[in-house]
Amino acid sequence: MKLSIVAIGDELLIGQVTDTNSGAIARIIEPHGWSVDSVTVVGDNSQSIRSAIDTAFTQTDIVVTTGGLGPTKDDITKQVLLDIFGGELRFDNDVLDNVKDIFQKRGLKLNALTESQAMVPTSCRVIQNKVGTAPILWFENDGKILVSLPGVPFECVQMFEQAVFPQLLAKFSTDTYIGHRCVILTGITESDAAEALDEWERELPDCLHLAYLPKMGMIRLRLDGKHSDSVYLEELLDSYHTQLISMFPGKVLAKSDITPVEALLSELRSKGLTLSTAESCTGGNIAHTVTSIAGCSDVYMGSVVSYFNDVKIKLLGVDASLIDAYGVVSEPVVAQMAIGATKAIATDCAIATSGIAGPSGGTPTKPVGTVCISVAYPFEGETRVIAKTMRFPGTRERVIERATTAAIVMLTMALRDSTH
Amino acid sequence: MKLSIVAIGDELLIGQVTDTNSGAIARIIEPHGWSVDSVTVVGDNSQSIRSAIDTAFTQTDIVVTTGGLGPTKDDITKQVLLDIFGGELRFDNDVLDNVKDIFQKRGLKLNALTESQAMVPTSCRVIQNKVGTAPILWFENDGKILVSLPGVPFECVQMFEQAVFPQLLAKFSTDTYIGHRCVILTGITESDAAEALDEWERELPDCLHLAYLPKMGMIRLRLDGKHSDSVYLEELLDSYHTQLISMFPGKVLAKSDITPVEALLSELRSKGLTLSTAESCTGGNIAHTVTSIAGCSDVYMGSVVSYFNDVKIKLLGVDASLIDAYGVVSEPVVAQMAIGATKAIATDCAIATSGIAGPSGGTPTKPVGTVCISVAYPFEGETRVIAKTMRFPGTRERVIERATTAAIVMLTMALRDSTH
Repeated sequence: MKLSIVAIGDELLIGQVTDTNSGAIARIIEPHGWSVDSVTVVGDNSQSIRSAIDTAFTQTDIVVTTGGLGPTKDDITKQVLLDIFGGELRFDNDVLDNVKDIFQKRGLKLNALTESQAMVPTSCRVIQNKVGTAPILWFENDGKILVSLPGVPFECVQMFEQAVFPQLLAKFSTDTYIGHRCVILTGITESDAAEALDEWERELPDCLHLAYLPKMGMIRLRLDGKHSDSVYLEELLDSYHTQLISMFPGKVLAKSDITPVEALLSELRSKGLTLSTAESCTGGNIAHTVTSIAGCSDVYMGSVVSYFNDVKIKLLGVDASLIDAYGVVSEPVVAQMAIGATKAIATDCAIATSGIAGPSGGTPTKPVGTVCISVAYPFEGETRVIAKTMRFPGTRERVIERATTAAIVMLTMALRDSTH
Repeated sequence: MKLSIVAIGDELLIGQVTDTNSGAIARIIEPHGWSVDSVTVVGDNSQSIRSAIDTAFTQTDIVVTTGGLGPTKDDITKQVLLDIFGGELRFDNDVLDNVKDIFQKRGLKLNALTESQAMVPTSCRVIQNKVGTAPILWFENDGKILVSLPGVPFECVQMFEQAVFPQLLAKFSTDTYIGHRCVILTGITESDAAEALDEWERELPDCLHLAYLPKMGMIRLRLDGKHSDSVYLEELLDSYHTQLISMFPGKVLAKSDITPVEALLSELRSKGLTLSTAESCTGGNIAHTVTSIAGCSDVYMGSVVSYFNDVKIKLLGVDASLIDAYGVVSEPVVAQMAIGATKAIATDCAIATSGIAGPSGGTPTKPVGTVCISVAYPFEGETRVIAKTMRFPGTRERVIERATTAAIVMLTMALRDSTH
């Protein structure tokens, strides 16, 4: 089954807020063989909303709208839905009870504007919003279904997953099974990968398709399959997945769709090692990336973010003379930071970064984007330290992101090759 | 002027990549009085791309497509553009030179697939892509313009800003001037703000419009104006902006569209204070948020991310007995972490966090989402320390984000009230 999404809100169109709801909905429905046909983002404007919904219904019988249901004046979605599906507004006591309940839990007092959320079209069925005040509206007419969800991401995604999609699944069934396999490559360009795969890809069975998703210096290869027989498809995917992995020796970061940090944590766990970080130019982003993963605390101990040089000297034990001799962005200094982190935080492994994220601070020999990365890890009973200088293009944000990923990948690949 | 965006790529529709290009384009064109009419996201499918472009041209005369121009087989945009605008593929030597140049700079070797990027439609004008290999294609026919940009965010955004938009601006002129003012409120709900503003908003001049953008426990109020006379509009906006600010004493975090961390840095700079952080549950995200801002190093010195309790004791000087008595997620411990950070990193101010980000680890008295936040800052010649316990709903990611913002806002508002 396919559905269309209409995401509503001036804040999306002017670029103040990014639409993450549509991607989340896509990820929820995909394992069930459903897909998103298109996403249309429109402003808080009756005519645009109406036209986007009408166009969406020419493509799919199910349309999900997100946003435009708050209590303030810039929300006009409800009126457009009345225009399309008819009916009038009625007062819904259950919605009011829900709004009261949520306000009470949050220790807030109700006002007239919030109470207006309890006015709902007579032409729809109401699904209570357990995590917010805007009700979810389910319209159904002549084989077409429209579900209107609030725009606040955690309300939208949670209610779609828990309340809306189960009802859609119950209503429709599909006989096409969809499966995926993923391989993440590092240290190879998209073009080189594509050239290596050219013949193999041309000879793929019709029910399989290969997609290239380059990101942050890595390439995610996704093998998509569609077939009525799920057992046959899964076996076929396994077989081609194995072939794909064998074609890139030494370049496979992960054999499934996990992030680099998940690959690192899995590598650390399998070897029983602990990790700390010492960050200068990445400014805490490696620590943040690691600690975004629930359960990381079994291997990750902490970080020293040494933005100021004195912190490198005092907390990480970097020699001031080394900074004077080589500069703070240098392989000797970053190697000392990595060793310093293993000592200060008492861990087996460490990642350290020092670089020039920009936009200013570059020099002719060390331009903006220059980042020294070091990893320390146990190797044959000792601590081995590797330090490399890399150069990343783009904005400050991009340099920080790329350096974070490169550092995480560097330790992952080093541990994979090591014995300890 | 208005333009429509068609964002192309299976990776966007299945939720593996989020479309950030459209928002970036919107932010680039907005100060020039241009706006995005709609964004349609479609997959790598000829029929969907064709239909989205056709629909977009019924709404606006300018359509910008992003994505679908890479060298691999899942990109079919070029063929669709040939179908719409006619012509055939020709070989472009300048594009090949550019591709060769970029590959050389990155130390990569050219292959046949990448060379295929030099095949361009005869029906378009080529704009060289200075930061990537896919050329930018400018089609123009019968008053309609379509510009095809690559999907890689930094290529797309940089080339749109530097090469495409200046040419669009030169081609069209507009006599409507657009202006904005922003006020960011903290410590008030959207409904209470809306109720307080109800009468004021109803009496706004026709050329002004107020939008509510709630985010992370704050409310961004954006006053939008459109008028042919820019001087008149700017004066009008200034006057209503001042009124808006005066209506929310003690609740105004910022008087312009800056982020909480920018407000904090500005507050620190104006008072000549330095900052460090000590993070447990936010895991480096406060440090990352601060260091994302270029030039932060004049006030921000560093962080200790103390994920493991021993790190709190060893590097931040937290008493083990205090952890035993109150638990690690407690106001006494987080207050000691804040003081410890000012000492270990030698700063005037510090922010510390300790909490349960989830999804597991909660207890009946300290459920998931419980976060203790402490700020230390100079007040009347001494260091004042405030500690609060807050509770944030939602996923791990959301708890970390909310706690980060709350901590930054807490120090900003404390400094604003303080004299030192």
